[in-house]
Amino acid sequence: MLRCASVLMCLLHVLHTVLGAAISPKPIIINGTYINPELGKYHARLRTLARSCLEIRDKHGVTQDGMYILSTASGTYYQAFCDMSSAGGGWTLVASVHENNIRGKCTSGDRWSSQQGNDQHRPEGDGSWASTHTFGTAEGSTSDDYKNPGYYDISAQDVSVWHIPNDEQLSNWTSSAVLRYHTESGFLRDTGNLYHLFKKFPVRFGAGRCGSDVGAVSPVVFDTGDKDSTADLYGPSAGGEFESGFVTFRVFDSDRAAMAMCSGVRPTQCSPQHYCIGGGGYFPTSDQCGDFTALDRSHTHTGASRRLTESAVLLFYR
Amino acid sequence: MLRCASVLMCLLHVLHTVLGAAISPKPIIINGTYINPELGKYHARLRTLARSCLEIRDKHGVTQDGMYILSTASGTYYQAFCDMSSAGGGWTLVASVHENNIRGKCTSGDRWSSQQGNDQHRPEGDGSWASTHTFGTAEGSTSDDYKNPGYYDISAQDVSVWHIPNDEQLSNWTSSAVLRYHTESGFLRDTGNLYHLFKKFPVRFGAGRCGSDVGAVSPVVFDTGDKDSTADLYGPSAGGEFESGFVTFRVFDSDRAAMAMCSGVRPTQCSPQHYCIGGGGYFPTSDQCGDFTALDRSHTHTGASRRLTESAVLLFYR
Amino acid sequence: MLRCASVLMCLLHVLHTVLGAAISPKPIIINGTYINPELGKYHARLRTLARSCLEIRDKHGVTQDGMYILSTASGTYYQAFCDMSSAGGGWTLVASVHENNIRGKCTSGDRWSSQQGNDQHRPEGDGSWASTHTFGTAEGSTSDDYKNPGYYDISAQDVSVWHIPNDEQLSNWTSSAVLRYHTESGFLRDTGNLYHLFKKFPVRFGAGRCGSDVGAVSPVVFDTGDKDSTADLYGPSAGGEFESGFVTFRVFDSDRAAMAMCSGVRPTQCSPQHYCIGGGGYFPTSDQCGDFTALDRSHTHTGASRRLTESAVLLFYR
Repeated sequence: MLRCASVLMCLLHVLHTVLGAAISPKPIIINGTYINPELGKYHARLRTLARSCLEIRDKHGVTQDGMYILSTASGTYYQAFCDMSSAGGGWTLVASVHENNIRGKCTSGDRWSSQQGNDQHRPEGDGSWASTHTFGTAEGSTSDDYKNPGYYDISAQDVSVWHIPNDEQLSNWTSSAVLRYHTESGFLRDTGNLYHLFKKFPVRFGAGRCGSDVGAVSPVVFDTGDKDSTADLYGPSAGGEFESGFVTFRVFDSDRAAMAMCSGVRPTQCSPQHYCIGGGGYFPTSDQCGDFTALDRSHTHTGASRRLTESAVLLFYR
Repeated sequence: MLRCASVLMCLLHVLHTVLGAAISPKPIIINGTYINPELGKYHARLRTLARSCLEIRDKHGVTQDGMYILSTASGTYYQAFCDMSSAGGGWTLVASVHENNIRGKCTSGDRWSSQQGNDQHRPEGDGSWASTHTFGTAEGSTSDDYKNPGYYDISAQDVSVWHIPNDEQLSNWTSSAVLRYHTESGFLRDTGNLYHLFKKFPVRFGAGRCGSDVGAVSPVVFDTGDKDSTADLYGPSAGGEFESGFVTFRVFDSDRAAMAMCSGVRPTQCSPQHYCIGGGGYFPTSDQCGDFTALDRSHTHTGASRRLTESAVLLFYR
Repeated sequence: MLRCASVLMCLLHVLHTVLGAAISPKPIIINGTYINPELGKYHARLRTLARSCLEIRDKHGVTQDGMYILSTASGTYYQAFCDMSSAGGGWTLVASVHENNIRGKCTSGDRWSSQQGNDQHRPEGDGSWASTHTFGTAEGSTSDDYKNPGYYDISAQDVSVWHIPNDEQLSNWTSSAVLRYHTESGFLRDTGNLYHLFKKFPVRFGAGRCGSDVGAVSPVVFDTGDKDSTADLYGPSAGGEFESGFVTFRVFDSDRAAMAMCSGVRPTQCSPQHYCIGGGGYFPTSDQCGDFTALDRSHTHTGASRRLTESAVLLFYR
């Protein structure tokens, strides 16, 4: 006999029973009735519906890495990967930059620069850094470009960045990472996230000059690798052109070509095309146009290592 | 103590309590248990699951603009934006035509004409107007082409069309609109929706002739702008080639090239490439191939204004 | 008055009542309250949440074809079409190969070979056969390439293959099929699914030789058509180059170009480009590069019939 003090208490009894059973890992048979454990897992994930992984950690006490369901301010629902382990957790994967063809210069698949060729009439290229256009999936983010609604919707203070070998499956990401780091400076507090940062500091050819017009820079704390191993990932000659231990957003080269992100470093010279990625749609030196700009250079001298150029760059917010 | 007259009454008590609490805007603590308000909003949206925004308005009495969950006849679930305000509401956003590169002629991103170049062997181009192929998201529909399952699934009588500046966020659409209008003629009643209309009247080079083979035309009621402001959006010379205050679907130019939609106007001459959009995959004058055909023309004489060419065209059904 | 022997029994009463009402086809009014039938259908579909259509059949006893909700091991939710009718049912649609431009050779839309042109520096092409990159939708799978998370996530033993005319709507697939067959050999048992099979046997130029390096071959049981009608679908000359009544995965031609799948047949000669589809990104004979390789050849002699080249190839797992 179920007796409850009130409708609300009765409801809570029922909900606790449902959800308690639901997150159990094995099938449950109650009086001959099968309770679907997959549905239980779904309800457990849905129960923590929030605007970000940080909210899921803070409001719902979740500490397990994995896929969760999030909502934008406008009420668009989407699935995202939450890193609940690194540096306290609460990190939402919002994007990845994947180079599908290092020899293709602003061709199909170069969504973070331009898929329309090098073109001086399109100085912002495809504009993905500052748009609400989304693409890809979390589970496919090491095999293709990825951008979810969290990129423009979540209010964040810091970023975490993972370099994961191309085509690596989600369950192996942490163990196979080439480089992982995060910021603790709260450098995104002013703008709120990268979408707004790049609205303010456009990734557009000619919008600024090398040195004087950097969008944002922050020191980083390494989770996999360190300053030296990061420098080694870029080419032997490139080492003298940057300082390791930072992440930098929106820079220009000496030709006024714009790049979106220098992962793990901050430029001290004016040839960021050898270690910065993403970009506008026009590079006066046309073979630099592309998601991974001129990181390849046949993997010699100024070129980055294959470990770096054959890894996707995953972006998290917190 | 919860006592109910029957299982059904008890269930209704419980559901009312859950859903009543769920749509409350602030967190709810009951006997120390936190009820997630985001989950509540989700349940409120899910509760009105239907085939179209019109059904949500009519059957569930919803009057708030926003994202809702819809289902196709086959049971595919998707999220769509509902305009519940304009002219009585009940409008489902099903598609947007976004020009990512006005200088690119049937290149990548020209999903509403052809992404394979101007090609006489592909007279229908990519065929998006009459296929079940979908792409994009509602929140990204001013930054990229958009087409959801509602485009082919919903039974509609009328359309509403919004011209919204590129990259504008959903919350600003109405206030920033360049042009908005809707039909009240029920011109879609015969075919059911644009998917079926374009099956009957293909957007295919050579399938008809200027003047005699128009797919459909309807007068419109303006919600933002009027006949004159609409004519002004197209170039000064184009004004003599159409009558403002209509929307037209599937027309041909004098070369027998096909275009899908003339927004706000109906052609009276045979050069619709200056004010009609979408198209087949072949234009004898090759620089007209593209989602926005020849609307640019350097923004002079026959060219449309930048306000028009730099806005996405959002299509709603009711 | 609701009285239950325990919380669990009470819960089951409530759930049975909710779900029982939910799957009813017509609106239900209980004491003046409207219960949404679309929401009921959604709950009925959600109730069978599982890793594959086979699980839905086996664990939940479902026998109706249609769209269902599935989950990957990592907890990504997606919608898939289940064929619950053919040969006992339990088949999950995981992919389709759609040729959007038979004349385009490794151009935009050739996701199962390469969208970057014929390129000896990209011997695996876009790599879709062995990646977690997904695209398209079930309802759009006859109008565009399709690949869902089930392709890499589901543990399968057999495949079913349907050739469905381009742009055919889901409700007509079975009746309009050009060719349908399935395997019963359990040939996928070793690798688990095609994703893992192609990891082991890469679709890469130069990775093997004609004849000696076939990835997998299995006899098939025909559901629509037979050995002769299958042979007829390929060109009159091609008939002498294969044996009908099989499905083959990963083959090479005499130039060492790689192809992913020979549908309905197994090669006995070394010109599989006339009847095998999908491929790496490099073909020494460049006009063979593309999702449908050289199946067209102007539809003469070695060319396949238009019925075949204008149909999408749908891939199911069980």
